Amino acid sequence: MAFVRDLWYAAGWTQDVKRELLPRTIIGDHIVLYRTEAGEAIALSDTCPHRFAPMHLGKLNGDTIECGYHGLRFDRGGACVYNPHGNGATPRASHLRRYPLIEKNGLVWLWMGEEAAADPAGIPDFPWLDDETYAFTGSHTIPMALPCDLIVDNLLDLSHAAYLHPGTLGPQQGTKDVTSVRKEGTRIFSDRLIPGAPPAFVFTATGAATPDETVDYWANMRWDPPGSFYMDAGIVTAGGQKEDGRILSSVQIVIPATETSSYYHWKMFRNFAIDSAEVTAGIEAAVMQAFTTEDEPMIAAVHQRMAGREFWSMKPLLLSSDSAAVQARRVMADLLKPRHENESMEAQPIVAVAG
Amino acid sequence: MAFVRDLWYAAGWTQDVKRELLPRTIIGDHIVLYRTEAGEAIALSDTCPHRFAPMHLGKLNGDTIECGYHGLRFDRGGACVYNPHGNGATPRASHLRRYPLIEKNGLVWLWMGEEAAADPAGIPDFPWLDDETYAFTGSHTIPMALPCDLIVDNLLDLSHAAYLHPGTLGPQQGTKDVTSVRKEGTRIFSDRLIPGAPPAFVFTATGAATPDETVDYWANMRWDPPGSFYMDAGIVTAGGQKEDGRILSSVQIVIPATETSSYYHWKMFRNFAIDSAEVTAGIEAAVMQAFTTEDEPMIAAVHQRMAGREFWSMKPLLLSSDSAAVQARRVMADLLKPRHENESMEAQPIVAVAG
Amino acid sequence: MAFVRDLWYAAGWTQDVKRELLPRTIIGDHIVLYRTEAGEAIALSDTCPHRFAPMHLGKLNGDTIECGYHGLRFDRGGACVYNPHGNGATPRASHLRRYPLIEKNGLVWLWMGEEAAADPAGIPDFPWLDDETYAFTGSHTIPMALPCDLIVDNLLDLSHAAYLHPGTLGPQQGTKDVTSVRKEGTRIFSDRLIPGAPPAFVFTATGAATPDETVDYWANMRWDPPGSFYMDAGIVTAGGQKEDGRILSSVQIVIPATETSSYYHWKMFRNFAIDSAEVTAGIEAAVMQAFTTEDEPMIAAVHQRMAGREFWSMKPLLLSSDSAAVQARRVMADLLKPRHENESMEAQPIVAVAG
Repeated sequence: MAFVRDLWYAAGWTQDVKRELLPRTIIGDHIVLYRTEAGEAIALSDTCPHRFAPMHLGKLNGDTIECGYHGLRFDRGGACVYNPHGNGATPRASHLRRYPLIEKNGLVWLWMGEEAAADPAGIPDFPWLDDETYAFTGSHTIPMALPCDLIVDNLLDLSHAAYLHPGTLGPQQGTKDVTSVRKEGTRIFSDRLIPGAPPAFVFTATGAATPDETVDYWANMRWDPPGSFYMDAGIVTAGGQKEDGRILSSVQIVIPATETSSYYHWKMFRNFAIDSAEVTAGIEAAVMQAFTTEDEPMIAAVHQRMAGREFWSMKPLLLSSDSAAVQARRVMADLLKPRHENESMEAQPIVAVAG
Repeated sequence: MAFVRDLWYAAGWTQDVKRELLPRTIIGDHIVLYRTEAGEAIALSDTCPHRFAPMHLGKLNGDTIECGYHGLRFDRGGACVYNPHGNGATPRASHLRRYPLIEKNGLVWLWMGEEAAADPAGIPDFPWLDDETYAFTGSHTIPMALPCDLIVDNLLDLSHAAYLHPGTLGPQQGTKDVTSVRKEGTRIFSDRLIPGAPPAFVFTATGAATPDETVDYWANMRWDPPGSFYMDAGIVTAGGQKEDGRILSSVQIVIPATETSSYYHWKMFRNFAIDSAEVTAGIEAAVMQAFTTEDEPMIAAVHQRMAGREFWSMKPLLLSSDSAAVQARRVMADLLKPRHENESMEAQPIVAVAG
Repeated sequence: MAFVRDLWYAAGWTQDVKRELLPRTIIGDHIVLYRTEAGEAIALSDTCPHRFAPMHLGKLNGDTIECGYHGLRFDRGGACVYNPHGNGATPRASHLRRYPLIEKNGLVWLWMGEEAAADPAGIPDFPWLDDETYAFTGSHTIPMALPCDLIVDNLLDLSHAAYLHPGTLGPQQGTKDVTSVRKEGTRIFSDRLIPGAPPAFVFTATGAATPDETVDYWANMRWDPPGSFYMDAGIVTAGGQKEDGRILSSVQIVIPATETSSYYHWKMFRNFAIDSAEVTAGIEAAVMQAFTTEDEPMIAAVHQRMAGREFWSMKPLLLSSDSAAVQARRVMADLLKPRHENESMEAQPIVAVAG
């Protein structure tokens, strides 16, 4: 299977890159992240070119990283700068690949393609994460033994919430929604409105709504490839204006680790009960329950049922609610095409087959 | 590898199909079973045609089955009758496959081939299961991580009992038996007699015999493809008549779940100590010990040792005691042949390759 | 992948072959070892030719081995000598393969090639194991879920000790060594000297040296294919003569079980604190810690990182310290070549592909 290399991938949260060696596998590449003494975040290949030991099993030595097997040291550019053996000559030809890295909105982004093609303008912006008027949950990263595309499918069709999340995040079963989907370049918007329904558990449990209230829900998804979501969401008293609403929005970013595993970075933010640590904890508990005991087992069951078969080869029954997810699959398929088939596109992707 | 589709497979016991969703995998097909409000047993494909969620993760809604991921509902015929999304149109083209199902002698049988070819006369009869003069054990189903053919081999050569089951079901090592094998259509009989031997543990432990008694054993096996056994068995005082014997017979039905896993349905019945729950429990304990701590590890070791190789390719040494098992393998090979090679057979099988 | 069959493989230690059935898998062959009543060590195929049951699940019956599934018995030559079934005829054509076996220096060696080519002169000698002037640790065998070649690489480049074993067996990081490598036939010698360094933990912890002492280390490795090591090693007060040194030598023999698993036989011996069981226990503890918590996880990580790729295809960066390991890989590659390409070699190997 193939991954799109010419994309920025969110490796994690700024705070997770420290003066320690942090391993991450992204689209099959083994990568080690750390921060220099001056505070610069670095991403290098996690495989020593000598005997293929994972570099993260070694240690930091100042700003260099030392292999834990035979002691070779590499600098933050990936060059071998110390060889304790023989005459001590450092091999020029061998080095650790360095990945272009940019920190933005509290996220660490890596460019997986050729360095020359790395354009910071391609990083999706999440200015809300820097907006101090909101109250935030923690910055979470969940490793999931699920392929990225099935998680994206899940998030781009929120109609599942009434069936899979009735006791946590979802609206009442049978509620009717109005959903509109549009595409701008490689970006997809899916705006969803549920008028006049009881509030979900996550709102009543946190005091944002009372159980006997009738509310309008909005949930507007913005997707960028491969799995970067800004979800503008909340509730307002039925018939009210969104500006008066209780916002419970989120950034959710899914990236492929391998063909069958992913990282799920997520953070929620709200405009109510700003100072309540208890409300923050309640939201985190409801979300974690939904993601790990409701979404994850269902997607794992789907993945197992597909048994390695390609999605379209299984001739899925498509419903109107699949519109956004299907368009996202098409964007990814387009990005995977060789450049010459995409001559009109400004950002021409290259493709790498996973090892 | 291939399975014979044009056969009736015992999915389980009548009592196990209830107002709940019961998943079973049979010759690679994922199936969900349930009972309607009126009591009819239903078997449908366990894979939602929309996003491939296992239907058994959903719930019953009257006589319809509702997918737990996005809420589509299907009726007992497999038709989609409710779509909560968009304009609510129900997709005619997509449906769950319904498997012909017949309940007989307390067993639930599914036809895995084309519906038109489903002839109830092909279901093996087990009238003993309906005979209230016997005392019965429970109706058991054991999932086994073993291929069906190796379990059938085990059951069609009971000479292993003296070596593998010396402390449970088997006669003393070194006892001599007289075995005759005959074939009628696709049915095989293997009749075994052991004259003048001490009784096995299962008989002495249940008071059916005394340790110092000398008995004649009989064990007459009737096999139907792929693994349906009626075992007419018991002991009688040496030289006595079978009619005077202590019967400990059984129905044992093995079906393939996948290439490497099976279900083992079993139930024993006897004509002694009819009212003793203690004797029933003693028999169940001895049988479970024999099946799961003696047979299963040995067959698993054989399976591992074969390492995926085809049985005949390993050039097995054949003994006279292999006669019935070898004939059963030939029956299965014949049933797997395309129809045109079997023109003289009335029941012409079709073949499906496992996914 | 291929193994060299025309070699002697150390199946284990003499004391481990007893009046019990001992299974070992060597270059993919399943083998069962036992000792006759007269004390002869026997190695037979561990797979019954009848139904492929592992013979080690059966039992000894005098000098014969009885299959635990259907009771066939085979003598120490591998011939079937008893068939309890039918007319009792014993099948001449089928037998268990018998492996030529020689016990030498307390080790049990098996010849895996054609019997006619088995020359005892090809067994590496380890006379030190018979030298009663030394104090010995126990005779250990560790099954390792690692391919043999990566363990051999580890042992033929002891420069890793300073990085991987700083708190157990290794010298201080940054110590300089002088290493010379030479090849004699298929045997490789790698002699290593570290002048003027603090003694390793294993020496100070056992009272063989004081922490403030300055010592010279020697570590002379002798390798025979596929993984038989004699390591002549120890320390001496800096500038002293090796004859005055504290010897801590070892025999370490690694053999492939399968492509991805091995047995690691090891035994250490010393010329100091001869009568101290406490020192013996201290050495065993340090060695086991180094092998199982330092070497094994690192080699496993390398193995996982290689992901099934062939070593040379990954274009490893070679350092001067890789010299011995690279030469050993070349010896193994030569031994794997068909005979006609090696006409000048006296010992012409044959090759078997793993099943």
